Amino acid sequence: MDKSNISKPSLRRLPVYLSYLKTLPASTRTISATAVAAALGLNEVQVRKDLSAASSGGGRPKMGYSVKELIADLEEFLGYRNTKDAILIGVGRLGGALLSFKGFGECGMRIAAAFDNDPMKIGRRIGDVQIHDIRELPDVCPKLGAHIGILTTSPEHAQALCDLMLKNGILAIWNFSTAHLEVPEPIIVHNENLAVSLAMISHDLEEMMDREGKQED
Amino acid sequence: MDKSNISKPSLRRLPVYLSYLKTLPASTRTISATAVAAALGLNEVQVRKDLSAASSGGGRPKMGYSVKELIADLEEFLGYRNTKDAILIGVGRLGGALLSFKGFGECGMRIAAAFDNDPMKIGRRIGDVQIHDIRELPDVCPKLGAHIGILTTSPEHAQALCDLMLKNGILAIWNFSTAHLEVPEPIIVHNENLAVSLAMISHDLEEMMDREGKQED
Repeated sequence: MDKSNISKPSLRRLPVYLSYLKTLPASTRTISATAVAAALGLNEVQVRKDLSAASSGGGRPKMGYSVKELIADLEEFLGYRNTKDAILIGVGRLGGALLSFKGFGECGMRIAAAFDNDPMKIGRRIGDVQIHDIRELPDVCPKLGAHIGILTTSPEHAQALCDLMLKNGILAIWNFSTAHLEVPEPIIVHNENLAVSLAMISHDLEEMMDREGKQED
Repeated sequence: MDKSNISKPSLRRLPVYLSYLKTLPASTRTISATAVAAALGLNEVQVRKDLSAASSGGGRPKMGYSVKELIADLEEFLGYRNTKDAILIGVGRLGGALLSFKGFGECGMRIAAAFDNDPMKIGRRIGDVQIHDIRELPDVCPKLGAHIGILTTSPEHAQALCDLMLKNGILAIWNFSTAHLEVPEPIIVHNENLAVSLAMISHDLEEMMDREGKQED
């Protein structure tokens, strides 16, 4: 399976198929790309193409995919069966929510350690995760061999903390702060920007209200 | 300004420009599209096009944009100056984090009320937001005139709560649960799926490590 050829939009849809397949009752043994497309309101040709990129076994004409095999193939393709360690910096409300989020394990990510500078938080645990003094990061992080760094701090310190992570073995930053981070090649930054989502929603909502308003004229 | 013609990728970039512009020191009076592109590592032609779609005033040759006007134009274009009310259902860790997130106000969204079914939470406040009994939603929500519903519950109840919101004036659902929601036209669903982000990061990271590994051969 060549993972590098898949497009970003296809890659974004794979976890959606996976979570849908997991909601199916155990009595559903097989499913067609057509049925998946209909259930999720997606284009059938697209779904067929996405599934065949991720799963070699299935898609026999008239039979469809074995649900169990398709789940396994998607999990394999998405790297869920190959656990990756992450660290998290900034145990505020959002950081705390992520530390206690149970869904990451299913997706093959384990938050191995958290860091903060607040003495009230250092030494405590949330779930299975120990909160360390941020000054211990250069000792702790390389030992863990973690490559993903989750940044849930305020924007002021984000760049300095990003640089600190990169010096200590982190290769991909999952940035929940609103700061723009400068990183050297080939470091990965994935920005989780709620303002961007909100802009999309507001835009679609205004457009909808304009459209509906016009229809009433 | 015709907002309906802007592409989704452009729309996603506008809040990124805006947050970058807001980090500039007050002494920076003007800025060119070229400088914005360089700072954010984006394509210059793209940035020039995006900015001219959102801002009519600026972009004079050799002068660039007035930072102040460009911020104002972007805020106007993104609807930040036109406050929209939202409600939130599910005051768990994530819901609580969103209720106390200060960035929404800047983006023109106000969470006007929250709902839960936990007697320990009902009647309390987080920040300025009152937590109501979910059974009060049909009374409270239409009075507020809120059109955005933020769903931060577990996936099992997500569809029923979505249906309840749609019956009470909500037109756009911001779905933080992992459930797939079925909604009628023209209702908007924006899925905030951390598993999707994680899949993107894992994919890019595996690709990077393959590439770097190959270079060492």
